[in-house]
Amino acid sequence: MYQLYIANKNYSSWSMRPWLVLQAFDIPFEEIMLSFPSERDTGTFKQDVLAINPNGKVPALTDDRLLLWDSLAICEYLAEQHPEQNLWPKNSQQRARARCIAAEMHSGFPHLRNACGMNIRANLNEVGRRLWQENAELREDIARIEQIWSERPEAQGFLCGAFSIADAFYAPVVTRLMSYALPVSDATQQYMQTMMQHPAMQAWVTAALQEDAWVNYLEPYQPHVL
Amino acid sequence: MYQLYIANKNYSSWSMRPWLVLQAFDIPFEEIMLSFPSERDTGTFKQDVLAINPNGKVPALTDDRLLLWDSLAICEYLAEQHPEQNLWPKNSQQRARARCIAAEMHSGFPHLRNACGMNIRANLNEVGRRLWQENAELREDIARIEQIWSERPEAQGFLCGAFSIADAFYAPVVTRLMSYALPVSDATQQYMQTMMQHPAMQAWVTAALQEDAWVNYLEPYQPHVL
Repeated sequence: MYQLYIANKNYSSWSMRPWLVLQAFDIPFEEIMLSFPSERDTGTFKQDVLAINPNGKVPALTDDRLLLWDSLAICEYLAEQHPEQNLWPKNSQQRARARCIAAEMHSGFPHLRNACGMNIRANLNEVGRRLWQENAELREDIARIEQIWSERPEAQGFLCGAFSIADAFYAPVVTRLMSYALPVSDATQQYMQTMMQHPAMQAWVTAALQEDAWVNYLEPYQPHVL
Repeated sequence: MYQLYIANKNYSSWSMRPWLVLQAFDIPFEEIMLSFPSERDTGTFKQDVLAINPNGKVPALTDDRLLLWDSLAICEYLAEQHPEQNLWPKNSQQRARARCIAAEMHSGFPHLRNACGMNIRANLNEVGRRLWQENAELREDIARIEQIWSERPEAQGFLCGAFSIADAFYAPVVTRLMSYALPVSDATQQYMQTMMQHPAMQAWVTAALQEDAWVNYLEPYQPHVL
C-alpha cells in the first residue's frame, strides 16, 4: 500500500496535489499527516520529515521501499503504475498539453505563491483586494492562469477533458482565488465551480476546515494569536 | 521534424536541458535561436517568442502542429516518442528516482538560480568566493545538490546509470559550479568531469563560448560595457 506523507490540509498546497490524484482515482493509500509546527523551526516536524525523506519536505510517497519526494514525480509514478486509470489524458497530444500545464505550475507562478499562501479556512478578501491593486506581478500570474484555464475543451469541464493530474496541480489556485476573492472572469469561476464539486476536492476542503492547528508563520495577514 | 526554440547558449539554462536531451540521444531536430535583447524589454525577443508560445518563454518545442512549452514536459514527450532510447532509465524504480531528481531541479534551488545565473564564458571566481561566504541559502542549495549527486550508482557514472533526462536537468549546475568556482567535494568534481566529457555537453559549451551577444541584464557581476 502506498503511504503518502503530507502536511496540514489547510496550508500545504504541495501536499494537496498528489493526495487529490490518489483520492480522485480511487487508488488505495495510507495518509500520514505531519503537522507544521506553530512557530517556524520549532517542534519535531523537520526531523520527522527528514526521517523518511532526505529532502526534508512533504509530500513524499513510499511504495514498499521506494521513496518518491516530488509532487510531479509522484504523479508520474502513479500514472505509470495505474495505466488503465488515465491519470494523464489517453490521447498523446492532450497528454503533452496536460504535462505542460502541470509543469508550468510546478516551476512557475512565484508571485501568486509568495503573495497568496494557501489558507483554505481563512477569509482574506480584504487582503486580496489590496494585493490586487498593489501587485502587478500577481495580476500577471493570474492572467496567465486564466488564459490556461480558458483553453479547456469544454466550458463545464476540466482542463484537458476528464479530471487529470493537470487539474490537481491547479487545485490550490482554486482555493486561493476563493480565499483572497481575486476578481476573475465568469469562465474562470465556472472552472472553479467544476473543481469545487469534485468529490476529492470536497473531501480535502472539508478536512482542511476541520483542522484547528494554527501555524503562525503561514498566517502573515491575520492577527497573530499565539 | 522537431523544432526547438531556444535562447543564447551562454545564458539560457532552461534551453540547455531539452537541447542536451535531443543531442545526446541523436534525435533529429531543427534549432531555432532567438537571442535575448541586449537590454531588458527592448528589441523583438518577447514578441518573437509570443508568436510561437503564448507563455512567452523559451524553450519551446513544436512537433508539427503540437506545441510544448515547458522543459520537463518536452523531455517527457520525447521519452514517450522514442521509447527504445531510454531517455529515462528503463528500470521502473530507477526511473522514479530520476524523475524525482529532475523535478526537484525543475521547481527548486531558487537561491542558486538567483545568485548564480548561468554565464558559461564568464570567469566569476571572485564573485563565487564572495557569494559562498555571504549566502547561507546558496550553500544549502549546493549541499543538497551534492547529496543528490553523491547517490549515483557508479562513481564515474551519471546520476541514474546511463545519461538520462536527470543529468540534462543538472547540466547548468555543472557549468555554474565551474564559472563561479564554488568549493565542492572531489566526488562532485568527478561528476562534473563526467558531464563535461559528454559530447552533447561539449557541443553546447563550445557553441556558448563562440557567442558574442552581450546581454546586459544577465551580467550583474561584470562591468557593464554597453
